Amino acid sequence: MSKNLTTRSEDYSKWYNELVVKADLAENSGVRGCMVIKPYGYAIWEKMQAELDRMFKETGHSNAYFPLFVPKSMFEAEEKNAEGFAKECAIVTHYRLKNDPNKPGKLMVDANAKLEEELIVRPTSEAIIWSTYKNWIQSYRDLPLLINQWANVVRWEMRTRLFLRTAEFLWQEGHTAHATKAEAIEESKKMMDVYADFVQNFMAIPVIKGLKTETERFAGAEETYCIEALMQDGKALQAGTSHFLGQNFAKAFDVKFANQEGKQEYVWGTSWGVSTRLMGALVMTHSDDNGLVLPPNLAPIQVVIVPIFKTVDEFERISTVAHDLVSQLKKLGISVKFDNRNTQKPGFKFAEWELKGVPIRIAIGPKDLENGTFEIARRDNLTKEVVSVSAIDLYVATLLKEIQKDLFDKALQFRDNHITEVNTFEEFRDVLENKTGFISAHWDGTVETEEKIKELTKATIRCIPLSQEKVNGKCVFSGEKSTGRVLFAKAY
Amino acid sequence: MSKNLTTRSEDYSKWYNELVVKADLAENSGVRGCMVIKPYGYAIWEKMQAELDRMFKETGHSNAYFPLFVPKSMFEAEEKNAEGFAKECAIVTHYRLKNDPNKPGKLMVDANAKLEEELIVRPTSEAIIWSTYKNWIQSYRDLPLLINQWANVVRWEMRTRLFLRTAEFLWQEGHTAHATKAEAIEESKKMMDVYADFVQNFMAIPVIKGLKTETERFAGAEETYCIEALMQDGKALQAGTSHFLGQNFAKAFDVKFANQEGKQEYVWGTSWGVSTRLMGALVMTHSDDNGLVLPPNLAPIQVVIVPIFKTVDEFERISTVAHDLVSQLKKLGISVKFDNRNTQKPGFKFAEWELKGVPIRIAIGPKDLENGTFEIARRDNLTKEVVSVSAIDLYVATLLKEIQKDLFDKALQFRDNHITEVNTFEEFRDVLENKTGFISAHWDGTVETEEKIKELTKATIRCIPLSQEKVNGKCVFSGEKSTGRVLFAKAY
Repeated sequence: MSKNLTTRSEDYSKWYNELVVKADLAENSGVRGCMVIKPYGYAIWEKMQAELDRMFKETGHSNAYFPLFVPKSMFEAEEKNAEGFAKECAIVTHYRLKNDPNKPGKLMVDANAKLEEELIVRPTSEAIIWSTYKNWIQSYRDLPLLINQWANVVRWEMRTRLFLRTAEFLWQEGHTAHATKAEAIEESKKMMDVYADFVQNFMAIPVIKGLKTETERFAGAEETYCIEALMQDGKALQAGTSHFLGQNFAKAFDVKFANQEGKQEYVWGTSWGVSTRLMGALVMTHSDDNGLVLPPNLAPIQVVIVPIFKTVDEFERISTVAHDLVSQLKKLGISVKFDNRNTQKPGFKFAEWELKGVPIRIAIGPKDLENGTFEIARRDNLTKEVVSVSAIDLYVATLLKEIQKDLFDKALQFRDNHITEVNTFEEFRDVLENKTGFISAHWDGTVETEEKIKELTKATIRCIPLSQEKVNGKCVFSGEKSTGRVLFAKAY
Repeated sequence: MSKNLTTRSEDYSKWYNELVVKADLAENSGVRGCMVIKPYGYAIWEKMQAELDRMFKETGHSNAYFPLFVPKSMFEAEEKNAEGFAKECAIVTHYRLKNDPNKPGKLMVDANAKLEEELIVRPTSEAIIWSTYKNWIQSYRDLPLLINQWANVVRWEMRTRLFLRTAEFLWQEGHTAHATKAEAIEESKKMMDVYADFVQNFMAIPVIKGLKTETERFAGAEETYCIEALMQDGKALQAGTSHFLGQNFAKAFDVKFANQEGKQEYVWGTSWGVSTRLMGALVMTHSDDNGLVLPPNLAPIQVVIVPIFKTVDEFERISTVAHDLVSQLKKLGISVKFDNRNTQKPGFKFAEWELKGVPIRIAIGPKDLENGTFEIARRDNLTKEVVSVSAIDLYVATLLKEIQKDLFDKALQFRDNHITEVNTFEEFRDVLENKTGFISAHWDGTVETEEKIKELTKATIRCIPLSQEKVNGKCVFSGEKSTGRVLFAKAY
């Protein structure tokens, strides 16, 4: 197959858009800003879901499901949260269509079926969930309440891009309630750690853990913890957030509990989420000009076997070896496909599986039959080798682990090479223009400086890294006092 | 714990509503007609999902995800389908809220943010999916296309009941495309069989496979296959449907393919779905006046261990035995909970786990320690026995299988006892009034008769059973010619 993929150096943004569609991950739908997640893309998302779900349950959380709609009066109860989402929400106002008297076969909104109160399609579920928690929490014995929801949410974004920013997206949102401030903060941090663990070890994407500044904080939160990743074009991507909500939602929805002394107190809350946006991060971290590069942990097909043959007899003999290999690999839990289509040539197949990012390709030809060998190609570094081993299954299993590790190491090296300490605003601008990546710089802690820098450079503070030491310095922009460096970058 | 549950004989409907809430399955939300599925209820739904998903994949289907919204013009493209759902759909008309100038802190719909075209919140996804399939299908090589989606849908029902009929519900919807009519019909039947297999073997609910009459058919389908179950109050419940769509959606959305001879033909379609409604069927088939009765295959907790003790020393010795039992059972893949709360008495715990339908309760007291015995209570038939066996783990595993089978057999016996053949309309009415259940009667095949019977008795034709032999007879209502019996019942 011919890929005709724009290269990253030609136009990174175009490369991304094309790749997502050509590799069958997703495409735009007939509904403005909404995407269709295609089977191959959804299979990757299912693997993410399964692993995250396992991690959430292991840390004591249960799944539940809350309504898609939020009545307006409930939506506006927590003012900051409402303000943060009011400008981008889909609103249901009617509940019936009727025949259009002027256009046969067409329908129109039935004006007699107007809702008494408008319903907001959830952009996030704090409001609906805390209005429910009010009935679930009476005493300290009901706490902590540790719940997660897998759901679709809608944010009416004006400029959308597949996976990165869509009007509807899929996500999980955790919502927990606690008796003490300390416990809620601990939970927020714990879930940030769970996300970091998942993104690094499962998706092979290195991240920096940090705190958001007030400007970048979730609307309605006291503190937002985040994990920040770096894409190949030097732009940052927020890969997950975990919010300490303080008592904001408890106060907005009057959620109190009787403590051990019988006194009424407001509950402390957290919420945390990751979304199908991670699919975008996955593509932009590892893939190359030949197509997708998938980490073995997330690849729907980890190994593809392609037969190279001229005669039916050759094909049959290769098939015997291939089927045997398939069953050996399956026994090890490896997902493997024998591409025995006779409608396509090997070259076409090679290109197709390269485009789709299958980590290992094994080719078997007549010579391999003679010599008892396999030609093994790695998708990540495009190397090939002819191997002759007794335990090919274990060889492949080990190689998959190696590829997973190599992908992470490569991304880590790229990321670490793209964190630049600067001490003047000139250097700051120079890095942004030429080297890109994260810029580690002193900041005076004011919203004004943060906004001014954004206005001048489009760079924002991605996070105040948790690992950052307290070091006195001078703000790179204002020259005022600073107590530590923060990370700036242009971001998705 | 005190259950205070209304009994089934007092008020079946009230019993159901109370049980769903008290057993922590679901509750009404602050949004009209929408429910909150609570963690315990959602854990059961997750088990259903996992098993169905496995069965769908085993039969060659892949998951994907399509948009929540359907633009009005797309919605109305297949006229019968549009007509069928137009009267009960939630409509998004605006995309922004603004501050209400007259009410500080309140929001209002921003009239300047009106959508050019209204969006329907999907009541089902044929329209959006077939509009996508148009781009995915060009040639016979693209067929069959076998896709499933797990999603939420909204139907603006006026009278709602937890799980049975809610404005928003969760479901899966399969949407397949085929090159021939025969293949599409085969797919519809196959998925009906998959549903029957799941509902009978996993949920322990016997079903009758059949065809819907024209009146009860899915809007836009040529034929609707269904599985019908019988609840303990003698009312029927449609547990799943599978539709042969003919070329209706292909024509509405112009989905054609080039066949092997290169000729353009319209594609043949199917769709099929089951929903959280199955949770209602589960409750109403097996549960009793003491609470839920869950089949072992679906129970989030299959075995609960309750210690009976007076002293700390007793508790510790019992705990040792219990922990050992827990790890033995876990090794067999059995989900088990040791209820070691010291805040509640055994009687409270017994009642709680009974209410929640845990299939097996094992009590361990000081006497059991002495004698090496366990007191094993079955939730389904409320029997208890003291057992002394060497391999308690295998004993429990076998018992779980036995309970699963006994639940099905019991429900089957009830169902079979509630299928009554009648030959006069007097008998028909008598069965409906007194015995309830399915009524097997001759019908003349006309919509008029079907509607007249519904008007007079509220009974509808649940299905034309596939197993029904062709036998000539006279319609129970009109006396006209009939070629076979159909099943009538009052239904949920």
